[in-house]
Parts: sequence; C-alpha cells; structure tokens
Amino acid sequence: MIQSKGYAASTATSPLAPVDFDRREPGSQDLVLELLYCGVCHSDIHYARNEWGSSRFPIVPGHEMVGRVTRVGDQVSDFKVGDLAGVGCIIDSCRTCTPCEDGEEHYCQKGVTMSYGSKERKDSNVISQGGYSTNYVVDADFALHIPSTLDPKAVAPLLCAGITTWSPLRRWKIGPGMKVGVVGLGGLGHMGLKFAHAFGADVTLFTTSESKAADAKSLGAHNVIISTDAEAMKSARGFDFILDTVSALHDINPYLSALKRNGTLCLVGLPDQQLAFKPGLILSNKVISGSFIGGIKETQEMLEYCGAHNIVSEIELIDIAEINKAFDRVVNNDVKYRFVIDLATLKADS
Amino acid sequence: MIQSKGYAASTATSPLAPVDFDRREPGSQDLVLELLYCGVCHSDIHYARNEWGSSRFPIVPGHEMVGRVTRVGDQVSDFKVGDLAGVGCIIDSCRTCTPCEDGEEHYCQKGVTMSYGSKERKDSNVISQGGYSTNYVVDADFALHIPSTLDPKAVAPLLCAGITTWSPLRRWKIGPGMKVGVVGLGGLGHMGLKFAHAFGADVTLFTTSESKAADAKSLGAHNVIISTDAEAMKSARGFDFILDTVSALHDINPYLSALKRNGTLCLVGLPDQQLAFKPGLILSNKVISGSFIGGIKETQEMLEYCGAHNIVSEIELIDIAEINKAFDRVVNNDVKYRFVIDLATLKADS
Repeated sequence: MIQSKGYAASTATSPLAPVDFDRREPGSQDLVLELLYCGVCHSDIHYARNEWGSSRFPIVPGHEMVGRVTRVGDQVSDFKVGDLAGVGCIIDSCRTCTPCEDGEEHYCQKGVTMSYGSKERKDSNVISQGGYSTNYVVDADFALHIPSTLDPKAVAPLLCAGITTWSPLRRWKIGPGMKVGVVGLGGLGHMGLKFAHAFGADVTLFTTSESKAADAKSLGAHNVIISTDAEAMKSARGFDFILDTVSALHDINPYLSALKRNGTLCLVGLPDQQLAFKPGLILSNKVISGSFIGGIKETQEMLEYCGAHNIVSEIELIDIAEINKAFDRVVNNDVKYRFVIDLATLKADS
Repeated sequence: MIQSKGYAASTATSPLAPVDFDRREPGSQDLVLELLYCGVCHSDIHYARNEWGSSRFPIVPGHEMVGRVTRVGDQVSDFKVGDLAGVGCIIDSCRTCTPCEDGEEHYCQKGVTMSYGSKERKDSNVISQGGYSTNYVVDADFALHIPSTLDPKAVAPLLCAGITTWSPLRRWKIGPGMKVGVVGLGGLGHMGLKFAHAFGADVTLFTTSESKAADAKSLGAHNVIISTDAEAMKSARGFDFILDTVSALHDINPYLSALKRNGTLCLVGLPDQQLAFKPGLILSNKVISGSFIGGIKETQEMLEYCGAHNIVSEIELIDIAEINKAFDRVVNNDVKYRFVIDLATLKADS
C-alpha cells in the first residue's frame, strides 16, 4: 500500500481535517503521482456534505489533480518518472462496453470508477480517495499528459470544469458564425466563455450579476445580458447554442425562447430538482440536452488544444488549511473562478 | 370570390353548423379544388373550442384535405384540371426568410399562413377557412400531388398526422438497427408506428391501454409496453429514439430513462402545460426535442414514399352531419385512428 496524507470529511457535517490513509498498491499498469495542485469543485462540497445522499465516509475529495510522476509500473510506456500528469474525475472503467469503446468511459455501462468515493477496480477493499492529498495511484490509461507550456496550477481545473464545458461545445460543433450563450459565470461558465471564444463563436454571457459584466468581457464574452432584466431577455434571440452551467433550480424557458430554430440548450449544471419547460418552445426542432464531464481521449485533446492556445482556468491559489473557508466561499459564489489547493502546504503541514 | 359551403363554429361553444361563405378570388398562381375528403385532427377541436385562446370566429376547421383540381391559374405549370391535389396545414409563407429558403415554411419568420384562421397573404380582408367545405383556393406552391395508387380518403390524414410523425423520424435518421418507441396510439401514433416500421426500426408502442396491443402489432409495432406498468417501464431500456405523441400533461421521465446514451425523446403532441424532467436523466448527451408538422417539399417526399410503400392512414369515414359527434369521440379517444369526412355528404346536404 502507498501511505498518503490528506484532508477528509469524516461525516456529512464535519469540516475537512487532516487524515493519514493508505492507497492501493500500484501495479504494473499504474503510476504514482506526487500531487502538486488540486482544484476545488462544487461537487466536492456536495459529496463531502452528502448532498446527493450516497457519500461514503471518511472521504478525501478532489478530482482536479496535477502532480509529478514518481513511479511507473513496468507495463507503462507513455509516462516516465518526472513527467507532469493529471487525474480528473474518472480513474477506471470496464473498458469493454460500447461507451468505453467509444472513448466515453464516464458512461461505462458497468459503472465508471470515480477518483473518490468509488470501490477501486484493482482492489475492491479500497474506496478511492481524492486529490486533497499528497499523492495518487492511477492506471496510466486514465492519467493525462499536461502541456509543458501551461502553468500547472491553472491547468488543474481543466480536468473537470474544462472538460465539462469543452465536451458539449465540441459535440455541438461550435465555431465561427455561431451565436453562443453561456449561462452563469462560475468555474464552469468561465471556461465555457474561453472555449466558445477560442472556437470563433459570437459569445454572450447570461448572468444575474451586473458586477460580472466587465470580467466576462475580459474572459471572452462579446456581449453580456443580465438575466433578471426581462426586457433584455426578450430581446435575446437567434442563439444557435446556449450552455447552461447553473446548478440551482432555474427557469429555462427564457433560454429556449432565445434559441433559433434547430438551436440547442445544453445543461451541464446538475440541479437536483426537476426543471420545467413549455413544450411549444421546442417545437421548431429545438433541443434540450445535457452533458457530463468527458472521456479520457477528449480530455487529452482538450489539454493539447489548451497548450496550443494558451488556455487555462482563472484561479485563486489557497493553502490546504483554508479549505473549509474556501468551501463556504464556493457555496456563496465568492470565487474568481476556481480555488486551487497548493499541496505543498499539505506536506509542510505535517 | 369563390362561393363555398362548409361547417363552421360560430363561437367557442357552438356546435359546428352549415354555413355559406366566400373564398378569396383565385389568381394566376392558384388552384381551385373541389374537395373530396377532409381529416378530423384534434387541433380542429382545440381551435373550434378556442382552447388555445386565439381563435377567430366564425371558423371552418380542417387541414387534411384531398380534392380534385377544377381550375388552374395561368401561371401554374405542375397541376392541371382533373388532378388530385392535397392541402395540409400551411397555405402560404413569406418565401424569402431562411426557414422558407430551407423548405421549412411552417417556421416562416414572418408567420406562416395556416389553412384556416389566418389572414390570407393574397387578400388581407379574408381569413382562411378550412377543409370541412366544398372547395378550396390555394397557391399551387402549397398544394401537394397525391399518388394515384393510394385511396384518397385514407391519404387525407397524411397531410397533418402523417407529416408530423414523418418529419422527426426522418430528421433523426430512423432506420434499421435502431430501437424506436412510439408513445400513444392515436392519429399521430399510428402513423409513427407505420413509418418507423417501414424505415426498418425495431418498434415498441407505449400505451396506457392494454386493449390497443393487438392493433399496435398489426400496425407495425414489434413490442407493446403498457406505460402504467411500473415494472415494465423499468425494463424498457436502450431506446435510440422515442416519438411522444401525447398531447396531455404526462411524465416524460420514464421515457428519458428508457433512452440510451445519445438517445432522443421527440415531442409532437402539444401539451399546453409545462413538462418537468430530471436533469440527471439527460446528462449522457440525451436529447429532448420537439417537432411541428413539416414543410411542403418534405410533405411531397412523404406522399411519394407512401405511394411507393402503400402507406395510408387507418380511417373511419363519416358524413359531415356526424361531425359534432365525431369531435366528442376524438376527445374521448374513441376513433381508430382518424375520422375523415366524406365531403360528398356536404354537397348532398344542400
């Protein structure tokens, strides 16, 4: 086993606190990473607070990891000791079902193994623990290469927030000549803006917060619409695609109205309540769809694109000791736009 | 002006009753048809009873018309006196906007002219009146050629119920190897079954009514699932496409669950209340979409396909004097599967 140190929630109501734990023994296909940075995703909070009702405790959260390879299994050919490597939300899958064969391991029919809270496929006695920790053991097929030109701490959020917005924008072929909306300017929304802009679309940010307009423009928005302004929303028309990153209950009808014939509203937030829509608003072949992270191959493609186009997340670097305060700030939308933990502060914390 | 005779609703609460009225003067691009048959669509009832709140009275309903050409304008080249011709839901449009140029006149940005209840583009003093009548005046560009091999009375419902189901099945490329569901066995659903079967899909009918199972199989369903059977619904999985023809408020979540990754639920009923869905059910790139009738070009393509494959609607032929009883029976789902008015009975009624 590999000894690790991290910050864990021991119950749904406990603050995160230091913990020592063991990771599974690495095998011939595995890498061991010394973790450098880990992003803080709202999902980490949902999980640590058991807001989806299925959490396993104790749990070390974190699925936006960048680290350095310290050990490679003897069957691993495409990583070597000293390489930077990333680990996102998924760390294993059955590898034989149709989604896995399609490179969509996150939809594995036998159940994907998540980077925390899942039973490890290679050692069913071990529940995976996330990246708020000193190291990680991962199958090399589920590790990502990190472009050397990018700042590794700002790369970490690409592994969840990045791929979550990249995947639907690619699927729906966003490009020049298209009018694209992004709803919400948070961890997901700010990456959606950057990608849609990079792909050449005309990009509008929809936000409830007037104070975000200037930021949105610096991040790639050509226009900003304040979504609480009913008149402005009525004039929002002709969108080919709207990426809705809002995770709270909200009214999607104004966005359906804003789509043109054949347009698509794609949900990447995960509201836990039902959303309602007026059927008449989608009759002209409009689409409501959803998307969930992405597969390993497309995550690597995203990272290479980001390397070539110098795209990273906007981050606020924090010490591990600030994690509980950071959780509260994420809940209050008080972050521009992603907290990333400097894991050197965890090693120093011993 | 062209004198016509029909059955009209004079208010939202009046039964349909005989009426004499004038149609616009036909021009050089127009046809005059002596109508032979007209289908009875649930929309006719919604309109006659002002259930959508925007009806113009008095109104002669009917938008599934088959007739014989009795007069052609001097600029008309592709119809001649004596031809069979059909008229569906749409009779004119701006012809220059993008949807019109795309052959989707029903989504005309300046507003499509409907076969009843619309201001005529060629004479703005005239409100179009539908096909429960002796004749019709229509621009030849919006008239359809009727395959000579088909029974014209059973063709009439193709002009609304047919194209409404044809269009989404074609758009979503239904074909061999695909698992397709059709929800509801009424005027729309029975055509959806026939088309999906003809396109080579494996077809399942979802119905609340056990009594429809045998009929569904004779119409093309390979399987029938009783949608009120929760266990059966739980085992319904792996659908590529589900065509939902239900026009009443209903729970779409079981159908979203039944879709495979990347599958599509397409709504062609038009519930007037909002539908709710669990966002988690569409995250694997599933799609909720809608579709509304179809354009003239694709309606003609459908008719030619029907001619080649001997596909028509299942109908019950009625006398015009039975129309009010027929309306009540449609509302009570007591029709297999479309009423068609024999308009000879209207002429005889004078």
